[in-house]
Amino acid sequence: MDTQPNAETKGEAAAEPKPAQEAGQQDSKAGEAEAPKEMRAVILNGFGGLKSVKIVRRPEPALADGEVLIRVQLCGVSFQDVMVRQGVTEAPPKTPFILGFECAGVVAAVADDVENVKVGDRVVALPDHRAWAELVPVPAKYVYPVPEAMPLQEAAAVTLSYTVAYLLVHDLANITSNHTVLLHSAGGAVGQAVCALLQDIGGVTVVGIASKNKHEDLKSSVTHIIDRSSDVHAEVRKVCPEGVDVVLDSQGGEECNRGYTLLKPLGRYILFGSSSIVTGETKSILSVVKSWWQVDKVSPLRLYEDNRGIIGFNLRRLLHHQPGGHEKVRNVVETVYKLWQSGVVKAHIDSTYALEDVTDAMTKMHDRKNVGKLLLDLSMEPRPRPTTPAKTKKEEKKEDKENEKDKEKDSKDSKEKDSKEDAKTDKEEEVKDAKK
Amino acid sequence: MDTQPNAETKGEAAAEPKPAQEAGQQDSKAGEAEAPKEMRAVILNGFGGLKSVKIVRRPEPALADGEVLIRVQLCGVSFQDVMVRQGVTEAPPKTPFILGFECAGVVAAVADDVENVKVGDRVVALPDHRAWAELVPVPAKYVYPVPEAMPLQEAAAVTLSYTVAYLLVHDLANITSNHTVLLHSAGGAVGQAVCALLQDIGGVTVVGIASKNKHEDLKSSVTHIIDRSSDVHAEVRKVCPEGVDVVLDSQGGEECNRGYTLLKPLGRYILFGSSSIVTGETKSILSVVKSWWQVDKVSPLRLYEDNRGIIGFNLRRLLHHQPGGHEKVRNVVETVYKLWQSGVVKAHIDSTYALEDVTDAMTKMHDRKNVGKLLLDLSMEPRPRPTTPAKTKKEEKKEDKENEKDKEKDSKDSKEKDSKEDAKTDKEEEVKDAKK
Repeated sequence: MDTQPNAETKGEAAAEPKPAQEAGQQDSKAGEAEAPKEMRAVILNGFGGLKSVKIVRRPEPALADGEVLIRVQLCGVSFQDVMVRQGVTEAPPKTPFILGFECAGVVAAVADDVENVKVGDRVVALPDHRAWAELVPVPAKYVYPVPEAMPLQEAAAVTLSYTVAYLLVHDLANITSNHTVLLHSAGGAVGQAVCALLQDIGGVTVVGIASKNKHEDLKSSVTHIIDRSSDVHAEVRKVCPEGVDVVLDSQGGEECNRGYTLLKPLGRYILFGSSSIVTGETKSILSVVKSWWQVDKVSPLRLYEDNRGIIGFNLRRLLHHQPGGHEKVRNVVETVYKLWQSGVVKAHIDSTYALEDVTDAMTKMHDRKNVGKLLLDLSMEPRPRPTTPAKTKKEEKKEDKENEKDKEKDSKDSKEKDSKEDAKTDKEEEVKDAKK
Repeated sequence: MDTQPNAETKGEAAAEPKPAQEAGQQDSKAGEAEAPKEMRAVILNGFGGLKSVKIVRRPEPALADGEVLIRVQLCGVSFQDVMVRQGVTEAPPKTPFILGFECAGVVAAVADDVENVKVGDRVVALPDHRAWAELVPVPAKYVYPVPEAMPLQEAAAVTLSYTVAYLLVHDLANITSNHTVLLHSAGGAVGQAVCALLQDIGGVTVVGIASKNKHEDLKSSVTHIIDRSSDVHAEVRKVCPEGVDVVLDSQGGEECNRGYTLLKPLGRYILFGSSSIVTGETKSILSVVKSWWQVDKVSPLRLYEDNRGIIGFNLRRLLHHQPGGHEKVRNVVETVYKLWQSGVVKAHIDSTYALEDVTDAMTKMHDRKNVGKLLLDLSMEPRPRPTTPAKTKKEEKKEDKENEKDKEKDSKDSKEKDSKEDAKTDKEEEVKDAKK
């Protein structure tokens, strides 16, 4: 175990964190070269649209007690990242902060008291934000060693999505053969992971909801495909006149009420997301309000009369905010890796982007155009972009105005009052569209 | 298969139903004697107290299409019978009607279209009321053949309680080793069945709530026993500071709200009864109202934030009123019988009563003094009672007044407006305290 004496607590606010001492980097991207003093990171300057996301250079982070420093090779992008950007998640950090919930790479250093991983180990980590950077310090309890035979890209693609899927399918919905399951976002990474686990159970009828463009790709994993833009519930009734045993809903909103009515006796409705909050590129107050008032409260006595159940599942809350949650998640991650070794768990990678192209990934996610996982690969070259012609005075003025508007909006949206000020004092060099 | 041509639809209202043709009675109590024209039955004359329950002689019932006629040897008594008597269940039949939800005996006749049982089979039946009589016609879908090796008394004791317990433990709560379970009414028949199934799983911590007098009996099946009359939730917190994974609640009322707060992350609260409605010997309107307004409605969004679930379970609704329910229940009954053969399922019989002593059984149930199942055995002699001395005029007058009051109350309570009239036209001979 490597020691890291006097390691400072990490934090965006820390003016000049000491660079981490790295050791045993022979397996990492950096090779044997001296540790760089700066790193690339994806930061959110203020809650809002794509323009709030910047690729910057930052001092390398320090390591605190209980933490593992990871030299990141791959990052996962999920719908939650879009929601964080818009400022519609619970208790986000103060902007500016490094975005992202998933990274995979090689351990560059560990704090004195860390025992579950050592320098050189290939790992996946699920920190609470701040995963999209070249060097990421993560509390050891959120770091999972990857089995030797498993390519890091596979691990990066399956860890979060299959952990959610496994908990949904086995712990919460208790799905068995002959069950009928209504699956929202069947084409997403979690949706595809659910399909793979259900295929392993066998004999499960999967009614998948997805955008029209994904239907061809989903034919092999879903029994009935329903177009997201159709009258979904009428369509479900057509293929399942008796209803379904399980609804796996990542949308929330009105869907909660409608989904409930589709349940057969002993059926259960599982809410594991609230993506219906996201409508446009930036937060819509109306959508946020709707996502609350549209959802009917239910009396346990009604559940008793109906022989039905409602279950909520929120991985971020479980992992980062609830006692015992991280141990539970670790058990499931280990199970997922075993299932990968036995061939049940398979990576479903839609596409891989350079760190600099993160907004392309976020746009694809927002537009629900991916089938499977979106990854960022830190070794990839950014895609070539058309050179921007020199701006006229008029264009510059217009852009300035838009930025001003954005900032005002961000300031209102941010749950931290001083975020605007912080954004202004962020003196780091923006390196968008320019790999270090 | 025995034919039963021109079988009439059964029903309390039918003036003179034709007695069923019986065949192959060599296994039944009646032996080779000619079928009696009358039978004993426990009827409810009007919703209310113990005095509304009468043992009467009735014409033998006729058999309708799809039905099985059972010569009953044993009946099960459950808390629901007390609730039916008080008139606090959903949509009970019009009084007078034969009480009871469980009987066990030998098939005396089957309708033309019945295939799952034949005359002479030993069976348990779970009809929707009308189980407590010597001859009971039951739709075949609610009749379960008993395995050859299984004594009928065991089958009568385990069928309902273990079917509920199995669905709770395995289908709904999905309880596994290392779970902590809070079990209300741990001493009841269902409670004891849950304990046996949890013991089979192994490694489950059971926190059982029971009346003080039962604690000695429950020591072997429950990890921690909590007195029903104590501050239950404070006591649970003492032994499980982190909360519990599952609450199995047969009480309802305020318990719904309190039980929910005891759940660990990923925990689920299962409501499978509403016995808190019952307070005294007769219905308390206040208790009924309380049982509704005390229960907080819950938003699915709160469940999502809390990582918790709420599930309702109501066997009567499932079995008799929901599509596909009876098939599901049949599968579970068959599983329970297999588990009996492998020694996991064991009958927990508290005591057995003569049909004439049914109100003693109901009183014990109401007072929550039983540990395990209460049965009625139709071959048992009623317990000797002190001879009632001849009544004085004054006493007779007083009793008349009380009966009048009872009838008024019953009439109000009954959900059928014409129940009073029916009770008056019930000309059958009352045979209470006098076995035929």
